[in-house]
Amino acid sequence: MLRYGYGVDVGGTEIKFGFFTEDGELIEKWSIPTRINGSDGREILSDIAKSVNEHRKTVSGEMIGAGIGVPGPVIDDRFVPVCENLYWRNVDAADILTEYTGLRVVCLNDANAAALGEMWKGSASGYRNSVFITLGTGVGCGVIQDGRLMTGAHGTIAEIGHIPVEPHETEPCSCGKYGCLEQYASASGLARIATRYLENHAADTVLTHGEITSKTIWDAYKNGDKAAGEILEIFGDYLGRGIAIAANMCDPEIFIIGGGMSNAGNELIELIRRNYLKYVFRTCSDTEFMLAKLGNDAGAYGCMYKLLAEC
Amino acid sequence: MLRYGYGVDVGGTEIKFGFFTEDGELIEKWSIPTRINGSDGREILSDIAKSVNEHRKTVSGEMIGAGIGVPGPVIDDRFVPVCENLYWRNVDAADILTEYTGLRVVCLNDANAAALGEMWKGSASGYRNSVFITLGTGVGCGVIQDGRLMTGAHGTIAEIGHIPVEPHETEPCSCGKYGCLEQYASASGLARIATRYLENHAADTVLTHGEITSKTIWDAYKNGDKAAGEILEIFGDYLGRGIAIAANMCDPEIFIIGGGMSNAGNELIELIRRNYLKYVFRTCSDTEFMLAKLGNDAGAYGCMYKLLAEC
Repeated sequence: MLRYGYGVDVGGTEIKFGFFTEDGELIEKWSIPTRINGSDGREILSDIAKSVNEHRKTVSGEMIGAGIGVPGPVIDDRFVPVCENLYWRNVDAADILTEYTGLRVVCLNDANAAALGEMWKGSASGYRNSVFITLGTGVGCGVIQDGRLMTGAHGTIAEIGHIPVEPHETEPCSCGKYGCLEQYASASGLARIATRYLENHAADTVLTHGEITSKTIWDAYKNGDKAAGEILEIFGDYLGRGIAIAANMCDPEIFIIGGGMSNAGNELIELIRRNYLKYVFRTCSDTEFMLAKLGNDAGAYGCMYKLLAEC
Repeated sequence: MLRYGYGVDVGGTEIKFGFFTEDGELIEKWSIPTRINGSDGREILSDIAKSVNEHRKTVSGEMIGAGIGVPGPVIDDRFVPVCENLYWRNVDAADILTEYTGLRVVCLNDANAAALGEMWKGSASGYRNSVFITLGTGVGCGVIQDGRLMTGAHGTIAEIGHIPVEPHETEPCSCGKYGCLEQYASASGLARIATRYLENHAADTVLTHGEITSKTIWDAYKNGDKAAGEILEIFGDYLGRGIAIAANMCDPEIFIIGGGMSNAGNELIELIRRNYLKYVFRTCSDTEFMLAKLGNDAGAYGCMYKLLAEC
């Protein structure tokens, strides 16, 4: 008899639920808003428990448990020392959710979850060594080596968003340091590069006529806007350099590019690859690049995969 | 009955041999010069075979085989696609050495071997996640995660020496790119920083009275030479930044610092730690730093460890 489980991807604005068979079929999915309220995690985790407990009444079959992905470091598949986006401090997420649901629960970092999801059922399927890069508000990363997720000593492996790439930066990153990759190679970083560019160039561009976002920049570029193209080259140089550093350190067969900005599509892949080749060690020149296949569901898939691996 | 094996560390100038028990006791060690002559590896491998075959006549007991470390990428524990220092191209090192000795042979990268050696019997003993950094002519690196050596898709994992750290560099690195860590944070990089510094500063320093090497700079610094101190700060900034990047990507519990420059001792560790903290993501602030314990024998130990793991 088939067994079932939940993959739960906790984001800063919404919590995405997936109900899966143990074979990895996504039977049902839904989401609820993230209620950020307090640092002990109990509100968010009780919202999750309520949603899962209600769903369980509607289904039969053996339940394996739940995997939960959070946007921060995770220790021992359960403990979240700090999670800026949720305002959590020292939350034993897995134990609390077990208390509220009676289910077995494993917890993992959300970028790591997406990396596992893409390995299991997405673009990295069939590869032993892959690195998942998520380009959204920040830059996240998950590393699979020999088919296993790497987690590191502090649960913060592959903090690619905070590798220093610009010694001359004068504005601090959210982490408090200066010149982190995330300050340039994220969606917000791209908008920041554009703002700086337009301050210093009297360019004839549609970008001066409205809000500057990652999407408006990509749209302008695809419509032939020259300034948008130059802005994306600056962005691409930072991103290509950051990913070359990741290749030199982790040497994957393939990079999977996900997150909101991956909607830019193959132009993004080509921009990355061109700049990557400027910086990477030559043995890694043939490393592949592919867009994430599972989109917003990658995290939930990965949470279910992790649950199966641990239970 | 105890079994025995050979750990063989092939360097650009000498080949170091260790004869070990399977418990990791180094019973005997010796070295021969590296005869670089031809790109198929047969001269060097036949010199190794000759030395091992002669040694075997002097000992009894069951022989497990030989582990061999080379200064380049290694695929499938046997194949060396390219090794600049030995001028090798596409050398099936393990198979050729087996042909010459009748022993089982495994092959691995020399920095990886040193990382395994330090994990087995050195400073990283007892740690599940460690990164070994070797500071010599270049900058090498080996990464242990969950007690396992990471190798990557192209056998070139952890090419820390070639991560780009200086976008404004005008001289090429040996790899053909510009601004690689190795151009600043190696022994030769330190001498290069000193030469540039002295060209631009009318400093009162002993460094203007003789050959500028890593050793003369460290010696001058320890004797209170102000210019040497400023040169080491520039060097330390690059090295600390490079190691912070490695921490952000690999998140070890401990960094082990080896290679020729590790003779500088605890001053080197303090210089690295101070600069590392300027750049690393805060969760990795408590990562430990320690000098390599096995010195020049780390590679041979690691070759023996790898042999035991594979046979």
